Amino acid sequence: MAATPVTESTSAYEPTGRTVPTRSRDRARYDRETVHSILDQAYVCHLGFVRDGAPVVLPTLFGRVGEALYIHGSTGSRPLLAAGKADPGLPVCVTVTHVDGLVLARSAFHHSLNYRSVVVQGTAYQVTDEAERRMALDALVDQVVPGRSADSRPANAKELAATAVIRLDLNEVSAKLRTGGPNDDAEDLDLPYWSGVVPVAPAYGTPVPAADLAPGIAAPGYLAAL
Amino acid sequence: MAATPVTESTSAYEPTGRTVPTRSRDRARYDRETVHSILDQAYVCHLGFVRDGAPVVLPTLFGRVGEALYIHGSTGSRPLLAAGKADPGLPVCVTVTHVDGLVLARSAFHHSLNYRSVVVQGTAYQVTDEAERRMALDALVDQVVPGRSADSRPANAKELAATAVIRLDLNEVSAKLRTGGPNDDAEDLDLPYWSGVVPVAPAYGTPVPAADLAPGIAAPGYLAAL
Repeated sequence: MAATPVTESTSAYEPTGRTVPTRSRDRARYDRETVHSILDQAYVCHLGFVRDGAPVVLPTLFGRVGEALYIHGSTGSRPLLAAGKADPGLPVCVTVTHVDGLVLARSAFHHSLNYRSVVVQGTAYQVTDEAERRMALDALVDQVVPGRSADSRPANAKELAATAVIRLDLNEVSAKLRTGGPNDDAEDLDLPYWSGVVPVAPAYGTPVPAADLAPGIAAPGYLAAL
Repeated sequence: MAATPVTESTSAYEPTGRTVPTRSRDRARYDRETVHSILDQAYVCHLGFVRDGAPVVLPTLFGRVGEALYIHGSTGSRPLLAAGKADPGLPVCVTVTHVDGLVLARSAFHHSLNYRSVVVQGTAYQVTDEAERRMALDALVDQVVPGRSADSRPANAKELAATAVIRLDLNEVSAKLRTGGPNDDAEDLDLPYWSGVVPVAPAYGTPVPAADLAPGIAAPGYLAAL
């Protein structure tokens, strides 16, 4: 048999019953380029899991490495303990959202947001391999500030022992996004209300040195790239 | 019996086994003032629910009115359908997060974020009362842009019929926050790495009028307050 050719489908995630939205299907995306781009511009995700039958959603940092997301926490944290103990792992949903604009329509009904989001569903497993754990911890730091892990003291044995790392592979993945202006109904276009988009984006302020920073250490250049 | 006096406890949410964190308990807050402030500066939440035993986390708009959060969606959306059909309602977790700063420590381990988050756990119910539904839809618009609901066309009967509204009462609620500079270990203070905080906040750009906006309609003053 010939080797499987690289086709367009390999650059997209396969939609599943859980990742095809019931509404606004035209806003759904499955290509890796879009998904990776949305993930890589973020460092905070919302991690969902089930505890005693009820949903729990917690904000936490993440790092993407290839087709995996890594999340870390104390070895005493509840979801990380659960991912380590449960067989077969911890069912999770990891969601990342960017707000790009407030969409003001003439009608209250058509108000909306411009946004980009990624939803990853699957099972998270504890990472036990030490090299992968170290790589993941670097990725978590570099997701927030690219280049920072190489410019800080790496974790020591005690810190590594206190840190749990879980991995969620990017298999069941969808992105959803809205762009553009308001979609007012034709009969509303002459109403006397302003209509348009207010752009929104995160803004980074001037770095504030630690009170006990030794003199002569300037803010590093990679902060300017934020 | 004397009437129950208004005590300090009435201005705070009662901690429960689900709202007391296992880690960093010093970062937890239960007072209504802190919780309301965090909620009122946001308009996007992450809504968690359980579908076929697995967690689902979706970003969505919310509005707070007193001690209730309202979320809306199409009558065809899966969680809103579930909240309407299920008895007794839909168990949910609604989480709101603000990132205020990137905390860069000398050690990779002590990297952190300054943030404020609120986690609300409970059961969401569909709102059927028409007056409450209209009030909730106004609140959802005003949560994004205060004052906007009065300056747009209210929902008509067809739009109201297509919109489901669910309510989650603020009973089981906790806030968590981190402020301040990095917490480096004493033995790391002389390491040659910059340490400090990079402030982060959402920035609103110049409003972009809709392409079909009638001439002579200026951007309203309430946009300047964003």
